[in-house]
Amino acid sequence: MPSYVYDFVEGNKDLKDLLGGKGANLCEMTRLGLPVPPGFIVSTDACRVYLSTGAEPPELGRQIAEHLHLLEGRMGQQLGDRDDPLLLSVRSGAKFSMPGMMETILNVGLTDTTIAGLIRHSGDERFAWDAYRRLIHMFGKTVYGVPDELFEHALDVAKRAAGASNDLGLSAGQLHELVDEYKKIFAAHAGRDFPQAPHEQLQLAVRSVFDSWNSERATVYRRQERIPADLGTAVTVMAMVFGNLGANSGTGVAFTRDPATGARGIYGDYLANAQGEDVVAGIRNTLSLQELEQLDPRSFGQLNRIMDRLEHHYRDLCDIEFTIERGKLWMLQTRVGKRTAAAAFIIASQLVDEGVIDLDEALRRVSGEQLVRLMFPAFDLSHADPPIATGIPASPGAAVGRAIFEAHRAAAESGPTILVRRETNPDDMPGIVAAQGILTSRGGKTSHAAVVARGLGKTCVCGAEALDVDVDARQFTVDGVTVREGDVISIDGTTGNVYVGELPVRPSPVVRYFEGELSPLADPLVAAVDRLVGHADAKRRLGVMANADTPDDARRARRFGAAGIGLCRTEHMFLGERRMLIERLILATDEQARQAALDELLPLQRNDFIEIFRELDGLPVVVRLIDPPLHEFLPALADLTATVAAAQARGEDPGRDGELLVAVRRMHEQNPMLGLRGVRLGLVIPELFAMQVRAVAQAAAVRVAAGGNPRPEIMVPLVGTMIEVPRAALTAAEIATAADFFSFGTNDLTQMGWGFSRDDVEAAFFPRYLQLGIFGASPFETIDRTGIGRLIRIAVAEGRAARPELVVGVCGEHGGDPESVRFFHEAGLDYVSCSPYRVPVARLEAGRATVL
Amino acid sequence: MPSYVYDFVEGNKDLKDLLGGKGANLCEMTRLGLPVPPGFIVSTDACRVYLSTGAEPPELGRQIAEHLHLLEGRMGQQLGDRDDPLLLSVRSGAKFSMPGMMETILNVGLTDTTIAGLIRHSGDERFAWDAYRRLIHMFGKTVYGVPDELFEHALDVAKRAAGASNDLGLSAGQLHELVDEYKKIFAAHAGRDFPQAPHEQLQLAVRSVFDSWNSERATVYRRQERIPADLGTAVTVMAMVFGNLGANSGTGVAFTRDPATGARGIYGDYLANAQGEDVVAGIRNTLSLQELEQLDPRSFGQLNRIMDRLEHHYRDLCDIEFTIERGKLWMLQTRVGKRTAAAAFIIASQLVDEGVIDLDEALRRVSGEQLVRLMFPAFDLSHADPPIATGIPASPGAAVGRAIFEAHRAAAESGPTILVRRETNPDDMPGIVAAQGILTSRGGKTSHAAVVARGLGKTCVCGAEALDVDVDARQFTVDGVTVREGDVISIDGTTGNVYVGELPVRPSPVVRYFEGELSPLADPLVAAVDRLVGHADAKRRLGVMANADTPDDARRARRFGAAGIGLCRTEHMFLGERRMLIERLILATDEQARQAALDELLPLQRNDFIEIFRELDGLPVVVRLIDPPLHEFLPALADLTATVAAAQARGEDPGRDGELLVAVRRMHEQNPMLGLRGVRLGLVIPELFAMQVRAVAQAAAVRVAAGGNPRPEIMVPLVGTMIEVPRAALTAAEIATAADFFSFGTNDLTQMGWGFSRDDVEAAFFPRYLQLGIFGASPFETIDRTGIGRLIRIAVAEGRAARPELVVGVCGEHGGDPESVRFFHEAGLDYVSCSPYRVPVARLEAGRATVL
Repeated sequence: MPSYVYDFVEGNKDLKDLLGGKGANLCEMTRLGLPVPPGFIVSTDACRVYLSTGAEPPELGRQIAEHLHLLEGRMGQQLGDRDDPLLLSVRSGAKFSMPGMMETILNVGLTDTTIAGLIRHSGDERFAWDAYRRLIHMFGKTVYGVPDELFEHALDVAKRAAGASNDLGLSAGQLHELVDEYKKIFAAHAGRDFPQAPHEQLQLAVRSVFDSWNSERATVYRRQERIPADLGTAVTVMAMVFGNLGANSGTGVAFTRDPATGARGIYGDYLANAQGEDVVAGIRNTLSLQELEQLDPRSFGQLNRIMDRLEHHYRDLCDIEFTIERGKLWMLQTRVGKRTAAAAFIIASQLVDEGVIDLDEALRRVSGEQLVRLMFPAFDLSHADPPIATGIPASPGAAVGRAIFEAHRAAAESGPTILVRRETNPDDMPGIVAAQGILTSRGGKTSHAAVVARGLGKTCVCGAEALDVDVDARQFTVDGVTVREGDVISIDGTTGNVYVGELPVRPSPVVRYFEGELSPLADPLVAAVDRLVGHADAKRRLGVMANADTPDDARRARRFGAAGIGLCRTEHMFLGERRMLIERLILATDEQARQAALDELLPLQRNDFIEIFRELDGLPVVVRLIDPPLHEFLPALADLTATVAAAQARGEDPGRDGELLVAVRRMHEQNPMLGLRGVRLGLVIPELFAMQVRAVAQAAAVRVAAGGNPRPEIMVPLVGTMIEVPRAALTAAEIATAADFFSFGTNDLTQMGWGFSRDDVEAAFFPRYLQLGIFGASPFETIDRTGIGRLIRIAVAEGRAARPELVVGVCGEHGGDPESVRFFHEAGLDYVSCSPYRVPVARLEAGRATVL
Repeated sequence: MPSYVYDFVEGNKDLKDLLGGKGANLCEMTRLGLPVPPGFIVSTDACRVYLSTGAEPPELGRQIAEHLHLLEGRMGQQLGDRDDPLLLSVRSGAKFSMPGMMETILNVGLTDTTIAGLIRHSGDERFAWDAYRRLIHMFGKTVYGVPDELFEHALDVAKRAAGASNDLGLSAGQLHELVDEYKKIFAAHAGRDFPQAPHEQLQLAVRSVFDSWNSERATVYRRQERIPADLGTAVTVMAMVFGNLGANSGTGVAFTRDPATGARGIYGDYLANAQGEDVVAGIRNTLSLQELEQLDPRSFGQLNRIMDRLEHHYRDLCDIEFTIERGKLWMLQTRVGKRTAAAAFIIASQLVDEGVIDLDEALRRVSGEQLVRLMFPAFDLSHADPPIATGIPASPGAAVGRAIFEAHRAAAESGPTILVRRETNPDDMPGIVAAQGILTSRGGKTSHAAVVARGLGKTCVCGAEALDVDVDARQFTVDGVTVREGDVISIDGTTGNVYVGELPVRPSPVVRYFEGELSPLADPLVAAVDRLVGHADAKRRLGVMANADTPDDARRARRFGAAGIGLCRTEHMFLGERRMLIERLILATDEQARQAALDELLPLQRNDFIEIFRELDGLPVVVRLIDPPLHEFLPALADLTATVAAAQARGEDPGRDGELLVAVRRMHEQNPMLGLRGVRLGLVIPELFAMQVRAVAQAAAVRVAAGGNPRPEIMVPLVGTMIEVPRAALTAAEIATAADFFSFGTNDLTQMGWGFSRDDVEAAFFPRYLQLGIFGASPFETIDRTGIGRLIRIAVAEGRAARPELVVGVCGEHGGDPESVRFFHEAGLDYVSCSPYRVPVARLEAGRATVL
């Protein structure tokens, strides 16, 4: 017969699948002999049966009764006992922490009958009615969906009537009356009276935890986070302990180190005479743990010892929930704690120093995503006023600018702007592109604003719900403050904070370190980054190169640790004044005119390459021949058509525009991404590629003559050394016979493999796709392992089979994305190439990939 | 020691790899005891050694000498003998017949010394000098590259001097003088005197056959036809027999049946007193074989018996070359003969009647490509003047129209036109699209005009080099005839013929048969098609459905034998008056307006479906929900921008155009092929798909109520039941869990797999790719087995593994392409769906696929 219920003494921290995270850690603390109230766990197995059959497993009722009986024996109390009733807390706990699920019902077991026993036994009538009030509220809300606001309104009315500023100001009698009011609210909305059978309360509470697995928010969250829908949740049932039994009681949360800075020493908040949810709700001001030390030195000392024990046991920063009941400390929860990116690096390095973990483990404890965040500039908050609002940190960075409420005005503005909207849509694209940052009052991390801003690398704070945005009036108000169009604001995409005025921006110390401006000893964060990136370098098998088109970028790439340039795009060298030469090339009607234009381009390109080879002396530089269609260098068809039509309507001669228009029309493509570009251009206009190859070779000769060591490699785009179309991956064996190396252009491979033009789809419908859970992440940010990854694996295997010495790399933007770097390591690539700023991230992740 | 040389008695017809096609068939005739002049073959092995090492294999000289010795013994003549010299013909012969290779050198062995023996032995001095003249010409041209024109000019001068109308009018003395002149031409261009050592002549002739394998024309041809470059050619060396030894000598070509009509009975041309190349060169009028019967009944009778023997031996139509030397018949070549498409069907059916082959073999003997040609209309030539020119038949059909010499005028013309150009380029596209047919004076089957016309299904004759096209003067001239712009011409894309005036067009009898207008007994071609398509139906495993969007097409599909509609596109139902409704849908600013537009579309769509379900009662109709992006139903951005800009420049209010422009700009996509279309549209505007599904369901209900048997199936485009993006093929296992059937959209799969937008690339650079041999055929015409085919195989295997009952078909245009149909059979698909006119082709090829 299957077991569905486990006592805390039966489990351990590794049983998260079966017992959920919360339950497994309670078991672990119980096994460590820490003061955990006794209890048991209804397993995820039971939940899965319930979810698939619609009913609890038949054995469950009996198994719960057996464990409850054990618990009653251990506590010397009975559920429903009118003299000294056992009260329970019922909490959800899945393998992964998951917003949207029911969390906690406290005080289960209180009824009109048992309250007398609680009053008697606690000697505190006020406490007992308060506990009953809380039960009806939590139970009504989570089991029967009674709206929160109704209970809160009744509480407010009672407080006003009593002239009380907070809940402690209500007397026992006033709370008794409030309980009667709560019961009426409950009955009116649940369609039944509040259940007076404690066992029924328990059964309904457990079932409502099961049901909450499929709440809408939980379902959406799972889809987005790719958590399987059939995992189910466990239910933790624990004897109640009370932090609200007077001044020598209380409840708190604590960390073994400061989760924001990594500073050693315990850190947390304490609220005297309160139950758990009061700390989080922020209804009264909390105390620091140092203040607890003054108040209750014995409990504080015990807490300190326990937390030290937990940190050594878990070998990591832990956070806990605890309650002190009349001077006795109880542990209610622990887990490896969340922390800021900086703290992650600092703590990992500290733990190495303390001999708790080794460097490999330290590498596992940090991530490229964290390093990315640490490389953004941040606000200097030393003289700043507090934020006027906090939204969801959707795309990191620190942006300052004039608040502008309409996209087209943001696009027209010359100085830096912050586009402020209730929410954005594809029509706002020009404004989003032009703005420094985007601030919205609605929508989450998958909203249009968030997705588009991340794609563009713009700072974004979204869902700042406190803002009342009035686009027509061109202003927003928050807490009485009004910000009008043109006022300067500052938004922090890393914290979600919104500030009035211009905050000074401080460059990232991590970037300053990589730039060589800061010593690794300058501060503990830089020291930790230096140490862990250094260890990653020692471990990694994957080479890291950089994408760089200019001598500046090339210099930075080298400083940031790139082993060379994996992608030097030559089309950027055709902009500015040289655009005229490309126009001449395109408009050339005969061979001679075409060659003349190319002859003028040759020395310019040669000089570009000389500069880059000088910066990367001794390191490989992979030059990609021109890739985009030539008409991208001409004006857009619609604009030019309008200009010419307008001129003609005014009776004027459109002149050169007319001539250009003929060429633009001739070269116009319906789908330029799938048109005459890359190697195709090289086959149709071979002189163009020939000029570029000549420029590379001559530049190398110049460098050699000057005593340098240039190491150019030439990359033929689209289908050549570059594997960019799906068919190229499928025919890699054949291509490998002609190519010395492969470089996956994962942007194009993703575009063609999925049939997505990034420019068109990222704003138009990716946000909707992310909301629907069709994507966990945009395939342009993180490589799609299933589809595009399969193409890459095929090409690597078959290319190497045909040419064993084939070197294989990737030069799409995925080369700097942490999860993608891990995939490229797994797929056996030789190197990744990414933007210079992502080089340290790729180095770190390439190292981590070897120890994960 | 390897053998490089084989006597005719050693080989047989199955050794084409080693001996070439010509050599193997000469061996076969020798083995059959037919009168073949003795000889031997230098194998392709020898050629391959020569091509890879640059020198003949060391043993070759000795082996040739040995076989020459045997030959001399058999002939009782010696090479170089001054009394009775042996003369040889040296001919190339690869596995596949290949234009561009050296073909033949006759009379090898003639020198200033041996000519005396030939004169003596033949008793015909004129003949001997004529033979020497021919040798110097052919040897000079093929071994030393002496220009043809020089020899021809000298011959013309001699004829003029002698007052002779043809070569027979030159006397022995005049020919002797011509030989001296030829020797001077040879020496001047070869840099040496004409070789007087017969063995050197032979050695150089053999080597020049080897060298001709790598001539430019041969190389280009091989690339285009995908013939491996390393096959090499064999060389056939045969004792000379002479058709130019007087009136009782001659030479001819013959077929065992009429290769144009399939009519029984031998058929061919004969030229008395001539050598082989004279027949082909057409310098004198040939006689029919019936006339040969009068002239030489004995030889004629023998020829008849031999040809009957050959046809029974090869079990097929054969063509032959023969020579009669002073009344004795010699067979110089045979092979299975080329024939017209009509003859292929008729002969295959005849051979079944004659008990020579069975129906499966008959099916192997015809092809879908032939059936395609037979379904085009043809000119009724019964009262036609002869053609004014003949070009390359590049795209079949019979087109009549006014000759127009500039694309933009052709595009502006209202009536039917034929676009006439020297050659076309992408700028001519509007004219090509507008014209009925395209006629060019330059370029071959892979020229721009040819490729684009085939892609568009337009009639095209290209490379009609006799035409002197003067675009500026808007006319062409040929043989003194001038055709001016506006004159009506007729071009036949099946034969390449060009006619002045309007020829009556006769619909294809095969189409009339399928339409039910002709009985299968009406004529032998229709009877043969009926029989072979019927047999294909009995054999095939692949179902054949049709793509049809209208009741008319649906009706035709059923008549042409479709088992249902595999692709009913619904976007065609949004054109015409309904375009306004789509505009309203797009411009709708609220939910209500959008729903109102959809509510008006619903009954219209429902009626479309009712009609189609009625036509296909009892058969499945696969309805594809709307696929293209909505902005395709709005005016083009550039046009609308110009209209609005012009209105504004004139100070006018653009009105509704301005409103439309906002929507068009908002919805504009850089690469609509990779944008918001198909299932994506259905996810972003779910009401649109919902309306369509409702219309299908209601239409089916209406038909059921009327006693019908509608069988609708619904296809979700892009990624759904349709596998159209490469990633869908790679994740077919997952898609199969949600889809009841797969339909490969091979157009999109090709576009995305290769990264080719068909609209953009087919005119812009496919012709160049075909010329360079990068493609053998456009991947949009014939499925690319290596790349796209691999995706299809992956999806079929993995889709069926996930859902064994999965039905898999294809609905791209490849479904009607013969070679592609064979691939789909091999890949294990259940059905193909193609345009109604291609249904019989697909039926035939699906049957052939089972017997090939």
